[in-house]
Amino acid sequence: MVPALGADAMSRHQPSDAVRLSIAEATALGTRALEHIGYSSEEAAATCAHLVDAACCGYHFAGLPRILEIADDPRTKEARQPIRVVRETPVSMLVDGGNHIGYYAIYKTALMAIDKAKQAGIALVGLYNCALSGRNTYYLELIARENLAGMLFSSAWPVVAPEGGARPMLGTNPMAIALPTGNGPLIFDMGTAAIMRGELALRSRLNKELPEGVAIDANGLPTRDPHEALKGSILPFGGVDRHKGYGLSLTIQALGLLAGASLPRGRVQDYAQLFVVFSPGLLIPEDQFKHDINELIKLIKATPLRPGVDEIRIPSERAFRERERARKEGLLVDRKVFEALKKMASAQAGIQAE
Amino acid sequence: MVPALGADAMSRHQPSDAVRLSIAEATALGTRALEHIGYSSEEAAATCAHLVDAACCGYHFAGLPRILEIADDPRTKEARQPIRVVRETPVSMLVDGGNHIGYYAIYKTALMAIDKAKQAGIALVGLYNCALSGRNTYYLELIARENLAGMLFSSAWPVVAPEGGARPMLGTNPMAIALPTGNGPLIFDMGTAAIMRGELALRSRLNKELPEGVAIDANGLPTRDPHEALKGSILPFGGVDRHKGYGLSLTIQALGLLAGASLPRGRVQDYAQLFVVFSPGLLIPEDQFKHDINELIKLIKATPLRPGVDEIRIPSERAFRERERARKEGLLVDRKVFEALKKMASAQAGIQAE
Repeated sequence: MVPALGADAMSRHQPSDAVRLSIAEATALGTRALEHIGYSSEEAAATCAHLVDAACCGYHFAGLPRILEIADDPRTKEARQPIRVVRETPVSMLVDGGNHIGYYAIYKTALMAIDKAKQAGIALVGLYNCALSGRNTYYLELIARENLAGMLFSSAWPVVAPEGGARPMLGTNPMAIALPTGNGPLIFDMGTAAIMRGELALRSRLNKELPEGVAIDANGLPTRDPHEALKGSILPFGGVDRHKGYGLSLTIQALGLLAGASLPRGRVQDYAQLFVVFSPGLLIPEDQFKHDINELIKLIKATPLRPGVDEIRIPSERAFRERERARKEGLLVDRKVFEALKKMASAQAGIQAE
Repeated sequence: MVPALGADAMSRHQPSDAVRLSIAEATALGTRALEHIGYSSEEAAATCAHLVDAACCGYHFAGLPRILEIADDPRTKEARQPIRVVRETPVSMLVDGGNHIGYYAIYKTALMAIDKAKQAGIALVGLYNCALSGRNTYYLELIARENLAGMLFSSAWPVVAPEGGARPMLGTNPMAIALPTGNGPLIFDMGTAAIMRGELALRSRLNKELPEGVAIDANGLPTRDPHEALKGSILPFGGVDRHKGYGLSLTIQALGLLAGASLPRGRVQDYAQLFVVFSPGLLIPEDQFKHDINELIKLIKATPLRPGVDEIRIPSERAFRERERARKEGLLVDRKVFEALKKMASAQAGIQAE
């Protein structure tokens, strides 16, 4: 199949000089390293489980290497308060993430949203005051594996220019939707930016040119130089249909306001997560829905192919397939990343042994 | 500003030989013509209000000319049953549209969703067994004007090929999100196809070439010939990011199954509407949210411009601006369409006078 022209292609590239670790080894290493930079064992374990899952799904640079970025992030040093529900009704909940890391706060919030949706049938849940959120697929999979449908809209700090604009005003603002099928969840997860922020940072570190049409420089002119792009703005996704990418991004920024984005700092362009979680059984008997959705997927997979294409893909299919293999074969971790994490983990082991 | 490369540009073109009608005249003419082809006065009035609104917003071919297509549509001749709620909980409702026209059934369902969301705070509402749905913005505006937030996902019959596929397997599957701002709603509404079905039909009628990259022929090869495209498939939106357009389209097709798409005919690729409607006040005090969203819109509008751009647009802004003018100045209706409708309306007047 013509590969997805994904601007995220690089973040899936396997490191060239790498160490192979079992899932258990990678998990222990990452968790220990996160504890070393000040996270509780619960927060470290939840965060590391997410990172290992991302790496298993083929997103290597969204895996353990992230721990080095987390260690460098100024927010990691800031004070954290307990995660707490600040407003609640039978069908909704607003959660203050207490400046905890997104990987952990969103995970905890997803679990609360699941409980709420199981009780009320549907739950609208907002979360603010936490950054570094990882892959939305991870949280939605938790939801779909409980036989619930979920939507997640995430607003963030501005790095993307609005259509026609020359300054970053919007986050990369992903949206994701998951449905249970009884056969492994169907999860669609996309950023509304033409390139992920982490991918841009990676290309800048590696001096690697950007694809055409994903960024502008500080003067608003198109650029393929990642350093100029970092001083400028990312563009919304969608190529010739970029006005749709822009409109969706702006809408998600606004949905973030519903989830309390402005509450911690009074900024209307900030991190927040809005979950809609519900039971398909509210509308359709569970068996009927599972039958229908599997029938739809079967039909799509059986579409006659365009010349040169070898398979019709279903969202999340490739990632889950890779994950199954990685769980058996283990993970490749860049040697430099491995050494750095080992140093952090050993120091932590020393502290714990004292 | 660089105009949106909208494949819907043509559907906004004003007719060249046209008759100017006041809103009241256009409404009377359209309603009478719809009654003539068998719609009750309530159904005709609701449908015509939608069509006149679309024309006022600048979508001329989504206005009164649609009545001629409705008249030709075989479904118009099929039996209709009363619209009825077939499954209900305090937070949800599944509605059988009874083969009524979408313009009417979706309107009625939106009103029911508003009532439900006002009572429970949030409502998940599915509608099946009705086609011809018009612009989702129309229904979401009703919702946002009641100070509610709304999302609408619409599945349809297959005219779009999945990424890599050579046959239509997905509908044009639009999604729309609306938020109240206290200052006129913010509404984002997009199709997930690279070109609207109606736009393709119009280009075929007028022998007008398609833009690059919006369709394939029956062999799965790219085509700009609208006649070949009608025998082939439309592509998902998104240009170089088409895999995102495809993933979203498939997800909306699956959401349609939640809304009962398969119930009338046992087909998993069929028309359905899924509404999520909720009160922003569940999460954020109403005044705070209105303040925040207006602040965000102000910031976006004030973004420094890229060279050659004269304005940053906000979704739905242009349409609402045009509508204000049209409400004063009236509508231009293509002369041939006007004559055809006048004939239908006079025949109806004759019947009513008898």
